[in-house]
Amino acid sequence: MASLLVNGRPASTVGVADRGLLYGDGVFRTVRVRGGVPLDWSRQFRLLARDCAALDIACPDGATLREEIGRVAPADAIAKVIVTRGTGGRGYAPPDAAEPTRIVAAYPPPAGDDPAARDGVRVRRCALVLAEQPRLAGVKTLNRLENVLARAEWRDPAIREGLLGDARGRLVEGTMSNVFLATGGRLVTPDLSRCGVAGAQRERVVDLADAAGIACEIRDVDFAELHDAEEVFLTNSVIGLWPVVALDAQRWQPGPLARRLQALIGEADARGD
Amino acid sequence: MASLLVNGRPASTVGVADRGLLYGDGVFRTVRVRGGVPLDWSRQFRLLARDCAALDIACPDGATLREEIGRVAPADAIAKVIVTRGTGGRGYAPPDAAEPTRIVAAYPPPAGDDPAARDGVRVRRCALVLAEQPRLAGVKTLNRLENVLARAEWRDPAIREGLLGDARGRLVEGTMSNVFLATGGRLVTPDLSRCGVAGAQRERVVDLADAAGIACEIRDVDFAELHDAEEVFLTNSVIGLWPVVALDAQRWQPGPLARRLQALIGEADARGD
Repeated sequence: MASLLVNGRPASTVGVADRGLLYGDGVFRTVRVRGGVPLDWSRQFRLLARDCAALDIACPDGATLREEIGRVAPADAIAKVIVTRGTGGRGYAPPDAAEPTRIVAAYPPPAGDDPAARDGVRVRRCALVLAEQPRLAGVKTLNRLENVLARAEWRDPAIREGLLGDARGRLVEGTMSNVFLATGGRLVTPDLSRCGVAGAQRERVVDLADAAGIACEIRDVDFAELHDAEEVFLTNSVIGLWPVVALDAQRWQPGPLARRLQALIGEADARGD
Repeated sequence: MASLLVNGRPASTVGVADRGLLYGDGVFRTVRVRGGVPLDWSRQFRLLARDCAALDIACPDGATLREEIGRVAPADAIAKVIVTRGTGGRGYAPPDAAEPTRIVAAYPPPAGDDPAARDGVRVRRCALVLAEQPRLAGVKTLNRLENVLARAEWRDPAIREGLLGDARGRLVEGTMSNVFLATGGRLVTPDLSRCGVAGAQRERVVDLADAAGIACEIRDVDFAELHDAEEVFLTNSVIGLWPVVALDAQRWQPGPLARRLQALIGEADARGD
Protein backbone atom coordinates (compact mmCIF):
# COMPACT_ATOMS: atom_id res chain seq x y z
CA MET A 1 0.00 0.00 0.00
CA ALA A 2 1.29 3.42 -0.90
CA SER A 3 2.01 5.44 2.21
CA LEU A 4 2.30 8.67 0.28
CA LEU A 5 0.26 10.38 -2.41
CA VAL A 6 1.16 13.61 -4.17
CA ASN A 7 -1.80 15.04 -6.07
CA GLY A 8 -3.44 11.65 -5.86
CA ARG A 9 -0.58 9.64 -7.30
CA PRO A 10 1.91 7.45 -5.43
CA ALA A 11 5.05 9.55 -5.14
CA SER A 12 7.69 10.29 -2.55
CA THR A 13 8.93 13.65 -3.80
CA VAL A 14 7.80 17.15 -4.70
CA GLY A 15 9.36 19.53 -7.18
CA VAL A 16 12.15 21.77 -5.94
CA ALA A 17 10.16 24.68 -7.40
CA ASP A 18 7.23 23.98 -5.10
CA ARG A 19 6.53 27.07 -3.03
CA GLY A 20 5.99 24.82 -0.03
CA LEU A 21 9.74 24.19 -0.06
CA LEU A 22 10.89 27.60 -1.29
CA TYR A 23 8.86 29.70 1.15
CA GLY A 24 6.89 27.38 3.44
CA ASP A 25 3.94 28.62 1.39
CA GLY A 26 1.35 26.12 2.55
CA VAL A 27 -0.54 24.57 5.45
CA PHE A 28 -0.96 21.14 7.01
CA ARG A 29 -3.04 19.05 9.39
CA THR A 30 -2.24 15.88 11.31
CA VAL A 31 -5.10 13.42 11.61
CA ARG A 32 -5.49 10.31 13.76
CA VAL A 33 -6.87 7.35 11.82
CA ARG A 34 -8.52 4.48 13.73
CA GLY A 35 -10.12 1.49 12.10
CA GLY A 36 -9.67 3.22 8.77
CA VAL A 37 -11.63 6.27 9.95
CA PRO A 38 -9.93 9.69 10.09
CA LEU A 39 -11.08 10.96 13.46
CA ASP A 40 -12.85 14.30 13.72
CA TRP A 41 -12.48 14.66 9.96
CA SER A 42 -15.18 17.26 9.39
CA ARG A 43 -13.43 19.59 11.84
CA GLN A 44 -9.98 18.77 10.49
CA PHE A 45 -11.09 19.59 6.96
CA ARG A 46 -12.87 22.76 8.04
CA LEU A 47 -9.69 24.00 9.74
CA LEU A 48 -7.55 23.01 6.75
CA ALA A 49 -9.89 24.99 4.50
CA ARG A 50 -9.82 27.95 6.91
CA ASP A 51 -6.02 27.88 6.93
CA CYS A 52 -5.88 27.68 3.12
CA ALA A 53 -8.20 30.70 2.99
CA ALA A 54 -5.88 32.61 5.34
CA LEU A 55 -3.14 32.25 2.70
CA ASP A 56 -5.54 32.57 -0.26
CA ILE A 57 -4.71 29.04 -1.39
CA ALA A 58 -7.48 27.09 -3.11
CA CYS A 59 -8.27 24.22 -0.74
CA PRO A 60 -8.55 20.78 -2.33
CA ASP A 61 -11.90 19.02 -2.25
CA GLY A 62 -12.65 17.42 1.12
CA ALA A 63 -14.04 14.19 -0.32
CA THR A 64 -10.89 13.77 -2.42
CA LEU A 65 -8.65 14.24 0.60
CA ARG A 66 -10.71 11.82 2.69
CA GLU A 67 -10.54 9.20 -0.05
CA GLU A 68 -6.77 9.68 -0.31
CA ILE A 69 -6.36 9.29 3.44
CA GLY A 70 -8.24 6.01 3.09
CA ARG A 71 -5.83 4.89 0.39
CA VAL A 72 -2.65 5.58 2.36
CA ALA A 73 -3.66 5.03 5.97
CA PRO A 74 -4.13 1.51 7.21
CA ALA A 75 -6.61 0.73 9.97
CA ASP A 76 -4.55 2.52 12.60
CA ALA A 77 -2.29 5.36 11.51
CA ILE A 78 -1.37 9.01 11.63
CA ALA A 79 -2.22 10.83 8.41
CA LYS A 80 -0.62 14.11 7.49
CA VAL A 81 -2.28 16.34 4.91
CA ILE A 82 -0.15 19.11 3.38
CA VAL A 83 -1.48 21.68 0.93
CA THR A 84 1.02 24.05 -0.70
CA ARG A 85 0.36 26.86 -3.15
CA GLY A 86 2.12 24.78 -5.80
CA THR A 87 4.68 26.16 -8.21
CA GLY A 88 5.06 29.42 -10.04
CA GLY A 89 4.84 33.12 -9.48
CA ARG A 90 7.60 35.68 -9.76
CA GLY A 91 9.61 35.40 -6.60
CA TYR A 92 7.40 35.88 -3.57
CA ALA A 93 4.43 37.03 -5.68
CA PRO A 94 1.88 34.22 -5.81
CA PRO A 95 1.05 33.05 -9.34
CA ASP A 96 -2.20 34.23 -10.88
CA ALA A 97 -3.57 30.73 -11.29
CA ALA A 98 -1.80 28.46 -8.86
CA GLU A 99 -2.48 24.75 -8.81
CA PRO A 100 -2.03 23.70 -5.20
CA THR A 101 0.03 20.64 -4.37
CA ARG A 102 -1.71 18.20 -2.05
CA ILE A 103 0.28 15.63 -0.14
CA VAL A 104 -1.30 12.87 1.91
CA ALA A 105 1.09 10.75 3.95
CA ALA A 106 0.58 7.98 6.50
CA TYR A 107 2.80 7.21 9.47
CA PRO A 108 2.66 4.46 12.09
CA PRO A 109 0.39 5.27 15.03
CA PRO A 110 1.95 6.10 18.40
CA ALA A 111 2.98 3.12 20.51
CA GLY A 112 -0.03 1.70 22.32
CA ASP A 113 1.81 1.38 25.62
CA ASP A 114 2.70 5.07 26.12
CA PRO A 115 1.71 5.80 29.73
CA ALA A 116 1.65 9.57 29.10
CA ALA A 117 -2.14 9.87 28.89
CA ARG A 118 -2.60 7.84 32.08
CA ASP A 119 0.28 9.03 34.24
CA GLY A 120 0.81 12.52 32.84
CA VAL A 121 3.95 14.13 31.50
CA ARG A 122 6.78 16.39 32.56
CA VAL A 123 7.14 19.63 30.61
CA ARG A 124 9.54 22.55 30.57
CA ARG A 125 9.26 26.22 29.75
CA CYS A 126 11.06 27.07 26.53
CA ALA A 127 13.42 30.02 26.27
CA LEU A 128 12.28 30.82 22.74
CA VAL A 129 9.68 33.60 22.71
CA LEU A 130 6.99 33.39 20.04
CA ALA A 131 6.75 36.33 17.65
CA GLU A 132 3.39 38.05 17.23
CA GLN A 133 2.05 37.90 13.69
CA PRO A 134 -1.74 38.28 13.69
CA ARG A 135 -1.92 37.52 9.96
CA LEU A 136 -0.63 33.99 10.57
CA ALA A 137 -1.72 33.44 14.18
CA GLY A 138 -3.70 30.25 14.68
CA VAL A 139 -2.88 29.05 11.16
CA LYS A 140 -1.02 25.74 10.85
CA THR A 141 1.39 26.91 8.16
CA LEU A 142 4.58 25.25 6.91
CA ASN A 143 6.60 28.09 8.54
CA ARG A 144 7.45 26.18 11.69
CA LEU A 145 10.99 27.21 12.54
CA GLU A 146 9.97 28.60 15.92
CA ASN A 147 8.67 25.16 16.84
CA VAL A 148 11.86 23.50 15.58
CA LEU A 149 14.10 25.88 17.56
CA ALA A 150 11.98 25.49 20.68
CA ARG A 151 11.94 21.70 20.45
CA ALA A 152 15.73 21.70 19.96
CA GLU A 153 16.17 23.29 23.40
CA TRP A 154 16.10 19.96 25.24
CA ARG A 155 17.02 16.35 24.62
CA ASP A 156 15.96 14.69 27.87
CA PRO A 157 13.36 12.12 26.69
CA ALA A 158 11.65 12.30 30.09
CA ILE A 159 10.49 15.80 29.19
CA ARG A 160 7.69 15.35 26.72
CA GLU A 161 6.78 18.91 25.82
CA GLY A 162 7.92 22.52 26.08
CA LEU A 163 5.62 25.44 26.85
CA LEU A 164 5.95 28.59 24.77
CA GLY A 165 5.08 32.15 25.64
CA ASP A 166 5.09 35.54 23.98
CA ALA A 167 7.16 38.65 24.66
CA ARG A 168 4.71 39.83 27.33
CA GLY A 169 5.03 36.65 29.36
CA ARG A 170 1.76 35.14 28.22
CA LEU A 171 1.44 31.37 27.91
CA VAL A 172 0.53 30.47 24.32
CA GLU A 173 0.95 26.77 23.54
CA GLY A 174 3.26 23.78 23.57
CA THR A 175 5.75 23.13 20.76
CA MET A 176 3.37 20.52 19.28
CA SER A 177 0.26 20.86 21.41
CA ASN A 178 -2.24 23.28 22.85
CA VAL A 179 -2.56 23.84 26.57
CA PHE A 180 -5.47 24.08 29.00
CA LEU A 181 -5.59 25.13 32.65
CA ALA A 182 -8.35 24.11 35.07
CA THR A 183 -9.25 25.99 38.23
CA GLY A 184 -12.43 25.69 40.28
CA GLY A 185 -14.01 23.36 37.76
CA ARG A 186 -13.51 25.81 34.90
CA LEU A 187 -11.18 25.59 31.93
CA VAL A 188 -9.13 28.24 30.24
CA THR A 189 -6.99 28.00 27.11
CA PRO A 190 -4.87 30.79 25.63
CA ASP A 191 -6.24 33.07 22.96
CA LEU A 192 -4.30 32.51 19.73
CA SER A 193 -5.04 35.69 17.82
CA ARG A 194 -1.45 36.99 17.93
CA CYS A 195 0.62 33.81 17.72
CA GLY A 196 0.35 30.05 18.13
CA VAL A 197 -1.29 27.24 16.20
CA ALA A 198 -4.97 26.49 16.78
CA GLY A 199 -5.03 22.70 16.81
CA ALA A 200 -8.11 20.75 15.84
CA GLN A 201 -7.99 18.89 19.16
CA ARG A 202 -8.03 22.21 21.03
CA GLU A 203 -11.26 23.21 19.31
CA ARG A 204 -12.66 19.72 19.86
CA VAL A 205 -11.93 19.84 23.60
CA VAL A 206 -13.55 23.28 23.83
CA ASP A 207 -16.63 21.87 22.09
CA LEU A 208 -16.71 18.69 24.18
CA ALA A 209 -16.39 20.74 27.36
CA ASP A 210 -19.17 23.05 26.24
CA ALA A 211 -21.48 20.14 25.43
CA ALA A 212 -20.77 18.64 28.86
CA GLY A 213 -21.54 21.89 30.67
CA ILE A 214 -17.90 22.60 31.58
CA ALA A 215 -17.13 26.31 31.25
CA CYS A 216 -14.15 27.00 29.01
CA GLU A 217 -12.79 30.46 28.50
CA ILE A 218 -10.50 31.47 25.63
CA ARG A 219 -8.44 34.47 26.71
CA ASP A 220 -4.94 35.75 27.37
CA VAL A 221 -3.26 33.63 30.04
CA ASP A 222 -0.24 34.81 31.97
CA PHE A 223 2.46 32.20 32.58
CA ALA A 224 2.11 32.96 36.29
CA GLU A 225 -1.43 31.55 36.22
CA LEU A 226 0.08 28.09 35.96
CA HIS A 227 1.06 28.38 39.62
CA ASP A 228 -2.59 28.61 40.68
CA ALA A 229 -3.95 26.06 38.22
CA GLU A 230 -5.37 22.90 39.77
CA GLU A 231 -4.88 20.98 36.55
CA VAL A 232 -2.85 21.56 33.40
CA PHE A 233 -3.15 19.44 30.29
CA LEU A 234 -2.01 19.32 26.68
CA THR A 235 -3.98 18.37 23.59
CA ASN A 236 -3.32 17.44 20.01
CA SER A 237 -4.90 15.07 17.55
CA VAL A 238 -2.21 12.41 17.93
CA ILE A 239 -1.70 12.37 21.69
CA GLY A 240 -5.33 13.04 22.58
CA LEU A 241 -4.97 14.63 26.02
CA TRP A 242 -1.94 14.45 28.29
CA PRO A 243 -2.17 15.66 31.88
CA VAL A 244 0.86 17.71 32.90
CA VAL A 245 2.33 16.49 36.21
CA ALA A 246 5.52 18.54 36.38
CA LEU A 247 6.75 21.92 35.14
CA ASP A 248 10.17 22.73 36.55
CA ALA A 249 9.60 22.55 40.34
CA GLN A 250 5.81 22.56 40.23
CA ARG A 251 3.82 19.33 40.52
CA TRP A 252 0.26 18.35 39.67
CA GLN A 253 -1.77 15.17 39.63
CA PRO A 254 -3.91 14.15 36.66
CA GLY A 255 -7.19 15.72 37.74
CA PRO A 256 -10.91 15.13 37.35
CA LEU A 257 -11.36 17.46 34.37
CA ALA A 258 -8.52 15.83 32.46
CA ARG A 259 -10.04 12.41 33.16
CA ARG A 260 -13.52 13.51 32.19
CA LEU A 261 -12.33 15.06 28.93
CA GLN A 262 -10.21 12.00 28.13
CA ALA A 263 -13.39 9.94 28.50
CA LEU A 264 -15.36 12.32 26.29
CA ILE A 265 -12.58 12.23 23.66
CA GLY A 266 -12.60 8.43 23.81
CA GLU A 267 -16.35 8.37 23.25
CA ALA A 268 -16.07 10.76 20.31
CA ASP A 269 -13.23 8.67 18.85
CA ALA A 270 -15.37 5.55 19.19
CA ARG A 271 -18.19 7.29 17.32
CA GLY A 272 -15.63 8.23 14.65
CA ASP A 273 -16.28 11.96 14.99
CA MET B 1 23.12 21.34 -19.00
CA ALA B 2 21.42 20.50 -15.78
CA SER B 3 19.85 23.57 -14.24
CA LEU B 4 19.26 21.86 -10.92
CA LEU B 5 21.39 19.74 -8.60
CA VAL B 6 20.21 18.09 -5.40
CA ASN B 7 23.12 16.89 -3.28
CA GLY B 8 25.31 17.15 -6.35
CA ARG B 9 23.16 15.05 -8.64
CA PRO B 10 20.86 16.27 -11.42
CA ALA B 11 17.37 16.11 -9.94
CA SER B 12 14.24 18.19 -9.95
CA THR B 13 12.64 16.98 -6.74
CA VAL B 14 13.21 16.56 -3.02
CA GLY B 15 11.69 14.01 -0.70
CA VAL B 16 8.36 14.88 0.88
CA ALA B 17 9.98 14.03 4.23
CA ASP B 18 12.55 16.80 3.81
CA ARG B 19 12.29 19.19 6.72
CA GLY B 20 12.71 22.07 4.29
CA LEU B 21 9.21 21.29 3.04
CA LEU B 22 7.67 20.13 6.31
CA TYR B 23 8.81 23.05 8.46
CA GLY B 24 10.76 25.49 6.28
CA ASP B 25 13.74 24.13 8.22
CA GLY B 26 16.51 25.56 6.08
CA VAL B 27 18.13 28.65 4.58
CA PHE B 28 18.92 30.00 1.13
CA ARG B 29 20.91 32.56 -0.81
CA THR B 30 20.41 34.04 -4.25
CA VAL B 31 23.59 34.71 -6.21
CA ARG B 32 24.18 36.65 -9.43
CA VAL B 33 26.41 34.78 -11.87
CA ARG B 34 28.21 36.76 -14.60
CA GLY B 35 30.60 35.23 -17.09
CA GLY B 36 30.40 32.02 -15.09
CA VAL B 37 31.53 33.79 -11.91
CA PRO B 38 29.22 33.84 -8.87
CA LEU B 39 29.52 37.48 -7.79
CA ASP B 40 30.54 38.31 -4.24
CA TRP B 41 30.77 34.58 -3.55
CA SER B 42 32.99 34.72 -0.48
CA ARG B 43 30.44 36.98 1.23
CA GLN B 44 27.49 34.92 -0.02
CA PHE B 45 29.01 31.74 1.35
CA ARG B 46 29.96 33.36 4.65
CA LEU B 47 26.36 34.53 5.12
CA LEU B 48 25.00 31.13 4.13
CA ALA B 49 27.27 29.50 6.70
CA ARG B 50 26.24 32.07 9.33
CA ASP B 51 22.56 31.37 8.62
CA CYS B 52 23.12 27.60 8.80
CA ALA B 53 24.80 28.13 12.16
CA ALA B 54 21.80 30.14 13.38
CA LEU B 55 19.68 27.02 12.83
CA ASP B 56 22.43 24.60 13.89
CA ILE B 57 22.50 23.07 10.41
CA ALA B 58 25.85 21.75 9.15
CA CYS B 59 26.73 24.02 6.23
CA PRO B 60 27.94 22.25 3.08
CA ASP B 61 31.48 22.82 1.93
CA GLY B 62 31.94 26.14 0.13
CA ALA B 63 34.12 24.77 -2.65
CA THR B 64 31.53 22.08 -3.37
CA LEU B 65 28.76 24.66 -3.62
CA ARG B 66 30.83 26.89 -5.86
CA GLU B 67 31.64 23.99 -8.15
CA GLU B 68 27.95 23.06 -8.31
CA ILE B 69 26.98 26.64 -9.16
CA GLY B 70 29.48 26.42 -12.01
CA ARG B 71 27.82 23.22 -13.22
CA VAL B 72 24.27 24.60 -13.30
CA ALA B 73 24.74 28.28 -14.05
CA PRO B 74 25.62 29.36 -17.58
CA ALA B 75 27.71 32.45 -18.17
CA ASP B 76 24.93 34.78 -17.07
CA ALA B 77 22.40 33.48 -14.57
CA ILE B 78 20.81 33.69 -11.17
CA ALA B 79 21.83 30.84 -8.91
CA LYS B 80 19.83 29.88 -5.86
CA VAL B 81 21.45 27.82 -3.13
CA ILE B 82 19.15 26.15 -0.61
CA VAL B 83 20.35 24.17 2.39
CA THR B 84 17.79 22.30 4.46
CA ARG B 85 18.31 20.23 7.60
CA GLY B 86 17.45 17.13 5.56
CA THR B 87 15.12 14.40 6.71
CA GLY B 88 14.45 12.76 10.03
CA GLY B 89 13.87 13.61 13.63
CA ARG B 90 10.77 13.03 15.70
CA GLY B 91 8.34 15.74 14.75
CA TYR B 92 9.88 19.16 15.27
CA ALA B 93 12.89 17.72 17.13
CA PRO B 94 15.92 17.86 14.83
CA PRO B 95 17.55 14.49 14.20
CA ASP B 96 20.73 13.66 16.08
CA ALA B 97 22.78 13.27 12.93
CA ALA B 98 21.07 15.14 10.15
CA GLU B 99 22.42 15.06 6.62
CA PRO B 100 21.57 18.43 5.13
CA THR B 101 20.02 18.64 1.70
CA ARG B 102 21.74 21.06 -0.64
CA ILE B 103 19.99 22.35 -3.71
CA VAL B 104 21.68 24.45 -6.36
CA ALA B 105 19.43 25.84 -9.07
CA ALA B 106 20.00 28.22 -11.96
CA TYR B 107 17.48 30.66 -13.40
CA PRO B 108 17.69 33.05 -16.35
CA PRO B 109 19.22 36.42 -15.50
CA PRO B 110 16.97 39.47 -15.32
CA ALA B 111 16.17 41.12 -18.63
CA GLY B 112 19.02 43.36 -19.72
CA ASP B 113 16.72 46.20 -20.70
CA ASP B 114 15.09 46.79 -17.31
CA PRO B 115 15.31 50.57 -16.79
CA ALA B 116 14.77 50.27 -13.03
CA ALA B 117 18.41 50.79 -12.08
CA ARG B 118 18.67 53.85 -14.33
CA ASP B 119 15.28 55.51 -13.88
CA GLY B 120 14.39 54.31 -10.40
CA VAL B 121 11.26 52.52 -9.21
CA ARG B 122 7.92 53.19 -7.59
CA VAL B 123 7.31 51.45 -4.29
CA ARG B 124 4.46 51.17 -1.83
CA ARG B 125 4.19 50.71 1.90
CA CYS B 126 2.82 47.27 2.76
CA ALA B 127 0.03 46.80 5.27
CA LEU B 128 1.60 43.62 6.64
CA VAL B 129 3.59 44.29 9.80
CA LEU B 130 6.69 42.17 10.35
CA ALA B 131 6.78 40.10 13.53
CA GLU B 132 9.78 40.44 15.83
CA GLN B 133 11.70 37.22 16.29
CA PRO B 134 15.30 37.97 17.33
CA ARG B 135 16.25 34.28 17.02
CA LEU B 136 15.55 34.39 13.27
CA ALA B 137 16.09 38.08 12.52
CA GLY B 138 18.51 38.70 9.68
CA VAL B 139 18.56 35.01 8.75
CA LYS B 140 17.44 34.12 5.23
CA THR B 141 15.36 31.11 6.25
CA LEU B 142 12.81 29.17 4.22
CA ASN B 143 10.05 30.58 6.48
CA ARG B 144 9.04 33.38 4.12
CA LEU B 145 5.27 33.61 4.43
CA GLU B 146 5.42 37.21 5.59
CA ASN B 147 7.18 38.11 2.35
CA VAL B 148 4.62 36.15 0.32
CA LEU B 149 1.66 37.84 2.05
CA ALA B 150 3.24 41.28 1.69
CA ARG B 151 4.02 40.75 -1.99
CA ALA B 152 0.46 39.58 -2.57
CA GLU B 153 -0.86 42.97 -1.45
CA TRP B 154 -0.48 44.55 -4.90
CA ARG B 155 -0.60 43.48 -8.52
CA ASP B 156 0.19 46.72 -10.33
CA PRO B 157 3.39 45.89 -12.26
CA ALA B 158 4.41 49.56 -12.16
CA ILE B 159 5.05 49.14 -8.43
CA ARG B 160 8.27 47.21 -8.16
CA GLU B 161 8.63 46.77 -4.42
CA GLY B 162 6.80 47.09 -1.10
CA LEU B 163 8.34 48.48 2.07
CA LEU B 164 7.78 46.64 5.32
CA GLY B 165 7.78 47.91 8.86
CA ASP B 166 7.44 46.54 12.36
CA ALA B 167 4.75 47.05 14.97
CA ARG B 168 6.41 50.21 16.27
CA GLY B 169 6.36 51.90 12.88
CA ARG B 170 10.00 51.29 12.09
CA LEU B 171 11.08 50.76 8.50
CA VAL B 172 12.74 47.34 8.15
CA GLU B 173 13.17 46.24 4.53
CA GLY B 174 11.47 45.60 1.21
CA THR B 175 9.70 42.32 0.44
CA MET B 176 12.74 41.13 -1.54
CA SER B 177 15.32 43.84 -0.91
CA ASN B 178 17.02 45.91 1.75
CA VAL B 179 16.57 49.65 1.95
CA PHE B 180 18.94 52.59 2.42
CA LEU B 181 18.23 56.27 3.07
CA ALA B 182 20.64 59.07 2.29
CA THR B 183 20.64 62.49 3.93
CA GLY B 184 23.41 65.08 3.95
CA GLY B 185 25.79 62.72 2.21
CA ARG B 186 25.36 60.01 4.85
CA LEU B 187 23.67 56.66 4.54
CA VAL B 188 21.48 54.80 6.99
CA THR B 189 20.01 51.32 6.71
CA PRO B 190 17.67 49.70 9.24
CA ASP B 191 19.04 47.52 12.00
CA LEU B 192 17.81 43.93 11.46
CA SER B 193 18.26 42.43 14.91
CA ARG B 194 14.54 41.95 15.56
CA CYS B 195 13.17 41.14 12.10
CA GLY B 196 14.05 41.29 8.43
CA VAL B 197 16.51 39.51 6.17
CA ALA B 198 20.11 40.71 5.99
CA GLY B 199 20.87 40.47 2.29
CA ALA B 200 24.39 39.96 1.02
CA GLN B 201 24.06 43.04 -1.17
CA ARG B 202 23.14 45.15 1.89
CA GLU B 203 26.37 44.15 3.59
CA ARG B 204 28.28 44.68 0.36
CA VAL B 205 26.92 48.20 -0.04
CA VAL B 206 27.79 49.00 3.58
CA ASP B 207 31.34 47.77 2.92
CA LEU B 208 31.65 49.60 -0.41
CA ALA B 209 30.41 52.82 1.19
CA ASP B 210 32.84 52.41 4.05
CA ALA B 211 35.77 51.84 1.70
CA ALA B 212 34.75 54.94 -0.25
CA GLY B 213 34.58 57.09 2.87
CA ILE B 214 30.79 57.37 2.82
CA ALA B 215 29.39 57.17 6.34
CA CYS B 216 26.76 54.45 6.74
CA GLU B 217 24.90 53.95 9.97
CA ILE B 218 22.98 50.78 10.87
CA ARG B 219 20.25 51.70 13.33
CA ASP B 220 16.51 51.78 13.92
CA VAL B 221 14.83 53.93 11.26
CA ASP B 222 11.36 55.33 11.69
CA PHE B 223 9.13 55.22 8.61
CA ALA B 224 8.70 58.96 9.02
CA GLU B 225 12.39 59.46 8.25
CA LEU B 226 11.62 58.66 4.62
CA HIS B 227 9.99 62.08 4.35
CA ASP B 228 13.27 63.81 5.09
CA ALA B 229 15.49 61.49 3.09
CA GLU B 230 17.21 63.02 0.07
CA GLU B 231 17.65 59.64 -1.54
CA VAL B 232 16.13 56.23 -0.98
CA PHE B 233 17.35 53.07 -2.66
CA LEU B 234 16.90 49.31 -2.60
CA THR B 235 19.50 46.58 -2.85
CA ASN B 236 19.65 42.88 -3.47
CA SER B 237 22.06 40.60 -5.27
CA VAL B 238 19.88 40.27 -8.37
CA ILE B 239 18.76 43.86 -8.90
CA GLY B 240 21.98 45.46 -7.71
CA LEU B 241 20.76 48.90 -6.61
CA TRP B 242 17.46 50.51 -7.53
CA PRO B 243 16.85 54.16 -6.69
CA VAL B 244 13.35 54.76 -5.33
CA VAL B 245 11.58 57.62 -7.13
CA ALA B 246 8.09 57.33 -5.69
CA LEU B 247 6.48 56.14 -2.47
CA ASP B 248 2.78 56.92 -2.40
CA ALA B 249 2.69 60.73 -2.88
CA GLN B 250 6.39 61.35 -2.22
CA ARG B 251 8.86 61.75 -5.08
CA TRP B 252 12.63 61.53 -5.33
CA GLN B 253 15.21 61.62 -8.10
CA PRO B 254 17.99 59.07 -8.42
CA GLY B 255 20.67 60.86 -6.44
CA PRO B 256 24.45 61.14 -6.33
CA LEU B 257 24.97 58.49 -3.63
CA ALA B 258 22.86 55.96 -5.53
CA ARG B 259 24.85 56.67 -8.68
CA ARG B 260 28.17 56.46 -6.89
CA LEU B 261 27.29 53.16 -5.23
CA GLN B 262 25.95 51.73 -8.50
CA ALA B 263 29.33 52.54 -10.02
CA LEU B 264 31.17 50.93 -7.10
CA ILE B 265 28.97 47.83 -7.39
CA GLY B 266 29.67 47.71 -11.13
CA GLU B 267 33.39 47.86 -10.49
CA ALA B 268 33.19 45.12 -7.86
CA ASP B 269 31.10 42.98 -10.23
CA ALA B 270 33.69 43.50 -12.96
CA ARG B 271 36.39 42.31 -10.57
CA GLY B 272 34.20 39.30 -9.81
CA ASP B 273 34.08 40.02 -6.11
